[in-house]
Amino acid sequence: MTIKAIIFDAYGTLFDVHTVVDKCEQFFPGKGRKISEIWRQKQLEYTWLRSLMGRYEDFWSVTHDALIFALKELKVDLNEQIHMTLLDQYLRLNPYPEVPNALEKLKNRKLAILSNGSTDMLNTVVENAGLSHVFTHVISVDELKIYKPFMGVYQLGVAKLWVNKEETLFITSNPWDASGAKTFGFQVCWINRFNKQFDELGVQPNMILKNLDQLVDRL
Amino acid sequence: MTIKAIIFDAYGTLFDVHTVVDKCEQFFPGKGRKISEIWRQKQLEYTWLRSLMGRYEDFWSVTHDALIFALKELKVDLNEQIHMTLLDQYLRLNPYPEVPNALEKLKNRKLAILSNGSTDMLNTVVENAGLSHVFTHVISVDELKIYKPFMGVYQLGVAKLWVNKEETLFITSNPWDASGAKTFGFQVCWINRFNKQFDELGVQPNMILKNLDQLVDRL
Repeated sequence: MTIKAIIFDAYGTLFDVHTVVDKCEQFFPGKGRKISEIWRQKQLEYTWLRSLMGRYEDFWSVTHDALIFALKELKVDLNEQIHMTLLDQYLRLNPYPEVPNALEKLKNRKLAILSNGSTDMLNTVVENAGLSHVFTHVISVDELKIYKPFMGVYQLGVAKLWVNKEETLFITSNPWDASGAKTFGFQVCWINRFNKQFDELGVQPNMILKNLDQLVDRL
Repeated sequence: MTIKAIIFDAYGTLFDVHTVVDKCEQFFPGKGRKISEIWRQKQLEYTWLRSLMGRYEDFWSVTHDALIFALKELKVDLNEQIHMTLLDQYLRLNPYPEVPNALEKLKNRKLAILSNGSTDMLNTVVENAGLSHVFTHVISVDELKIYKPFMGVYQLGVAKLWVNKEETLFITSNPWDASGAKTFGFQVCWINRFNKQFDELGVQPNMILKNLDQLVDRL
């Protein structure tokens, strides 16, 4: 398998979306994990639903709405300042521990991010993690106004990087994203950090690894 | 508000999808509710994801796959006979208790079902519940090969019933479905049986009721 470019999903793959748990716990002791889980679940659902309904709003807005839902669902007090502080965490997500070093070792190839995040969100989180220099492209679905796993989104990656999809490795921790990327025609690596169950969507990834260190060893 | 036709969602609105809990409990004591919840969640996710990926499979197939996921996720033994017995429950879902009488009282208007279910599944569950005679139309998304909340699905309802969307009341227990139907332009009633939280998708239903008895009182 010749791999000329590697395209990474951002949230949940490079960046730990549950970084927000700690901050949630500070504000709502004992409910932090639950808030964080509902927040993430609804964030994803709203991207899919808005795409199908033809009512695109950018990822910052969807993330905002999903947090509102999570707080209402758990009947915790809505306070604009807490709300903004939590949302702000999305700009400061920690990369998973092995990510910075692994990216350094992979950067003899074209490296890119292709993400649901809005352009501003992505640039900020990448910059805050000190990773701007390793990526040739940081690509947001915002250009198309529709979310993954719509096929056009993966096509956007190919168009921007000027590579063949068959020679592109797509890396994601999200089973539904891996299924979309595989359907599109990428080589796909599913990063399964937490021993999760892959989705039953009729396709399988080309490889399954625990983290990016294993990827460095394989390439 | 003039209402000339009423279109109902099926699963979760007229029929209790957690009817399957009892059967799940028989096979997997203590895990029935959890299996049923994951099964339903994945069933919905897979309809949205397959629609976005352009990989439509009918609702029977998606329901099958979602059950496979739920059983794997909870690490319970896969056995083809148990699997088919559980799946078969989808053809025998109980209507919620007030549904049959309420429909009788509403049927001076055009009544229809518009559902993600495949045509066979819908006809069977409606027939098993003894409700075939109250509906002028039982409409499946299968004709379009894409799921709710894609706008074309709601348009299909209008096309079949030959009514104006503004004079059509759409009834559903699913917040995302209510949001889709409202976006399309139906009058929308959200049936909130279990005191759930409405979704944050930027639209609100025209009315919120506990069950169909309340609807009879209102119309």
